[in-house]
Amino acid sequence: MATIRGKHGNFIEHFRPGQVFRHRRGKTLTEGLFAVFTDFSFTTNPLSKNARFARAYGYKGLVAPPGLVMNIVFSQSVEDVSENGRANLEYIDMRFGVPVHVGDTLEAETLVLGVRGSSKEPDRGVVHVQTTGRNQDGDVVLTYQRKVQCWKDDPAAPVATGEVQPRDIPVSLALPAYDPKRNYAQLAHLTSADTYLEDFHAGDVIEHSRGRVVTTEHIALTGMLDNTAQVHCNQWMVDQQPERFLGGQLVVYGGIPFYLCLGLSSADVGDNALADLRYRTGRHTAPVFAGDTVFAKTEIREVRDMPGRPDLGILDTILRGHKFVRKGDAAEKVDIFYLERELVLKRRSHYT
Amino acid sequence: MATIRGKHGNFIEHFRPGQVFRHRRGKTLTEGLFAVFTDFSFTTNPLSKNARFARAYGYKGLVAPPGLVMNIVFSQSVEDVSENGRANLEYIDMRFGVPVHVGDTLEAETLVLGVRGSSKEPDRGVVHVQTTGRNQDGDVVLTYQRKVQCWKDDPAAPVATGEVQPRDIPVSLALPAYDPKRNYAQLAHLTSADTYLEDFHAGDVIEHSRGRVVTTEHIALTGMLDNTAQVHCNQWMVDQQPERFLGGQLVVYGGIPFYLCLGLSSADVGDNALADLRYRTGRHTAPVFAGDTVFAKTEIREVRDMPGRPDLGILDTILRGHKFVRKGDAAEKVDIFYLERELVLKRRSHYT
Amino acid sequence: MATIRGKHGNFIEHFRPGQVFRHRRGKTLTEGLFAVFTDFSFTTNPLSKNARFARAYGYKGLVAPPGLVMNIVFSQSVEDVSENGRANLEYIDMRFGVPVHVGDTLEAETLVLGVRGSSKEPDRGVVHVQTTGRNQDGDVVLTYQRKVQCWKDDPAAPVATGEVQPRDIPVSLALPAYDPKRNYAQLAHLTSADTYLEDFHAGDVIEHSRGRVVTTEHIALTGMLDNTAQVHCNQWMVDQQPERFLGGQLVVYGGIPFYLCLGLSSADVGDNALADLRYRTGRHTAPVFAGDTVFAKTEIREVRDMPGRPDLGILDTILRGHKFVRKGDAAEKVDIFYLERELVLKRRSHYT
Repeated sequence: MATIRGKHGNFIEHFRPGQVFRHRRGKTLTEGLFAVFTDFSFTTNPLSKNARFARAYGYKGLVAPPGLVMNIVFSQSVEDVSENGRANLEYIDMRFGVPVHVGDTLEAETLVLGVRGSSKEPDRGVVHVQTTGRNQDGDVVLTYQRKVQCWKDDPAAPVATGEVQPRDIPVSLALPAYDPKRNYAQLAHLTSADTYLEDFHAGDVIEHSRGRVVTTEHIALTGMLDNTAQVHCNQWMVDQQPERFLGGQLVVYGGIPFYLCLGLSSADVGDNALADLRYRTGRHTAPVFAGDTVFAKTEIREVRDMPGRPDLGILDTILRGHKFVRKGDAAEKVDIFYLERELVLKRRSHYT
Repeated sequence: MATIRGKHGNFIEHFRPGQVFRHRRGKTLTEGLFAVFTDFSFTTNPLSKNARFARAYGYKGLVAPPGLVMNIVFSQSVEDVSENGRANLEYIDMRFGVPVHVGDTLEAETLVLGVRGSSKEPDRGVVHVQTTGRNQDGDVVLTYQRKVQCWKDDPAAPVATGEVQPRDIPVSLALPAYDPKRNYAQLAHLTSADTYLEDFHAGDVIEHSRGRVVTTEHIALTGMLDNTAQVHCNQWMVDQQPERFLGGQLVVYGGIPFYLCLGLSSADVGDNALADLRYRTGRHTAPVFAGDTVFAKTEIREVRDMPGRPDLGILDTILRGHKFVRKGDAAEKVDIFYLERELVLKRRSHYT
Repeated sequence: MATIRGKHGNFIEHFRPGQVFRHRRGKTLTEGLFAVFTDFSFTTNPLSKNARFARAYGYKGLVAPPGLVMNIVFSQSVEDVSENGRANLEYIDMRFGVPVHVGDTLEAETLVLGVRGSSKEPDRGVVHVQTTGRNQDGDVVLTYQRKVQCWKDDPAAPVATGEVQPRDIPVSLALPAYDPKRNYAQLAHLTSADTYLEDFHAGDVIEHSRGRVVTTEHIALTGMLDNTAQVHCNQWMVDQQPERFLGGQLVVYGGIPFYLCLGLSSADVGDNALADLRYRTGRHTAPVFAGDTVFAKTEIREVRDMPGRPDLGILDTILRGHKFVRKGDAAEKVDIFYLERELVLKRRSHYT
């Protein structure tokens, strides 16, 4: 007879360079998760709203927005990688593969690329991982690296500092072919007329006008993803040791402002995107709490051709999120999110 | 290189009588949206709850309640018509057509019928529109007019005051035929026994006993409809200029109390309805805020035959919503909603 | 012309021993309800998450977790049995039958087994009922008894004290056959490696490490189940007479902590369960309010064979839920839930 504390998740001393986690659960994308998460984000792209539109483009049905794909894959890795994380430091080289539809089942695995203890703060360390999500056919839907700051559980335990090389994960963005016999122009009124590739110019900065407050809904949204990290949902734990937690309160899971920034930018830069191609790097620069209103802006870095697809082009951008924090009578703008983002955009010449 | 403020929505000076908006996006009704929105409203009619029941009546599956159809069509018009609205003044002649089921894609368009500046309040004006929603087969599911008070963006801009005639939109309520071979009586226990046409009498007033508090959930619900009006979700914007906004706080999108009043009345007047036929006129008489508990009552105006359908009849009602507001120690009843509503009800003689 | 107060639900004086309620509505399990409710509970069992996994075990798709089946059936009985309830006193002999999948329609009926007035508190009494839920094919999915303390409406009305015998409801847990040709081991990484039958020992107590705060989301969740009891959603009513209500505030519907405790225990005891078999008895020992963080622990009472199924065994447990309540500077642990629970677990010998 014994009392057992059911621990979950790994602490920094548990990781080993080269270790592989085949994550538990997996996740089937139901119409419930699709609707709640897609609409939450303020995404406007009709590929994710209008099945008639998506089918006319050659998709088999509504297309999961990139932020939903990211959230489903990422969340599966939380229990093994970051349930005991203190902060998600960086997303690196996030690349998308085949589209994800309702009914698809995504499963994920993670390779530990690097482990490093902190000499200044011996109660924590950084783990660097490579995570890949695949659908039921084994096709890669997403692969990326990330770095997480994790707590140490046992102060005396050694940290297995070291590094291994990332795997070469073959991933290529799958897009429906351009077919001149399809009558794309007949559907053109369903997207914004000024968001084709030709409308963007390097150097332009677009301040997205919409903002969206995040409420305590973030707790349920995070739970819907099977993301079990306690800093997002265990109010009692945070209240016991507020000084241990960012802001001394439940922090909103990063996938939510990530996705919301994508969504807030959607009407201005993503309405005529066929897909997001790649996020070179990304990071959360400040935490978000319930009650914060999230805003976003996009800087256009480059507008370029897409090899083999004269109907499309690549929009190279920086997406930034921000909120405002009151300081006495004044309000301070606080950057919360940074993402180097490449989108695949339709050319007006071919689609209207 | 330029900084661009991504504006959305039209202000009063942008509308022209006769102008047509083919609204963007469109919306496929997923099981996610269906479940969240139908159940939110406290609707009790088993046509929207029980697929076995709906199929036994000749429907192909669960039937979207009228308030859901209204909300999906209406919300598609928000970006073009009322994203910069101050108040929704009136719904006029809202008529329902074919039933809406999970999997249907609804798209909407709006004709501007009238534009009028305000001489007393030069920062606003009223636009009068006619909006029609159709499914993927082009069948009308809903058509109605509404009047919206909109902000002016540029004080110096002229307002294109004027009027045009509404279009004649052919719409007729599609109902399954009565088939004496179907065993309706076997399912009669699934609805309230005292809500057939024979149970209602002109002049009766039914106070619906249930109330339902609206929480900050209204923000997510509104977002699920792709309704992007900032007064419902941009907390920061409201906090900056509370005097500009009704009640100085986020106001609940009108479609929510509209739908909730329909739902609260459902067990008493709608449980044996096959459909809502028409709303002659409707308006929001006071705003609703998070924390308000919504109540409803129904006045029966007329009980009449339905031409060609001896199994059915029309219940002509006024649906009113209210809430209570504290004034010191006392509580003041505040009317929030008014709707002249015609329902199609089953006769006990034919269905039990 | 009359003003009618649309009353709903029965008070203690309305019940008769032997009375049968065939509950209204029925409920089709959509992907929306499935996703919102399954994920809310923190359930980790991939049978409810991963359709590929569920099909590999011989199920036709995602399997509704026991707490979802319980909530759908239970809620259908609320209008007739407990809309005017003060407290749910006890669950008795809750037994599960055939699995429930998306698309199934559940309907329920209740037999009144006993009615008893309270001599000490004449404004209330206790009703004892037996409720059974069936799917569209008439198969039993769940049957159980419960006791509810109900308010009296008319102080002068007599209470029909008495008892009848429960019906014998034939129910047997339907499980997919074990098929050695299926490659279960290939999927074993999708569940926790230490939650097979062989891992448990009588007397062990497992403190589940995760906690989950309940927010005002409970109001919408309860509404999604068509549970119309006003103590969960009518803020105004509670504010008028707080002394009449537990804690003087909206109380969280018991099905929510019930389900959440099952979910919080899932990763430690339920990850390799094929089903829950039976809950001998259960009760809510303290109310839960918005803002409470719910925790759970499981005591293993017995690990035993399952006749006819050498691949499985029965885990006999007590599941307890608790929360913490602040008392000045200290925190008091308050038990909120007690459930004698039998699960059917896979043996490692057969599935890995």
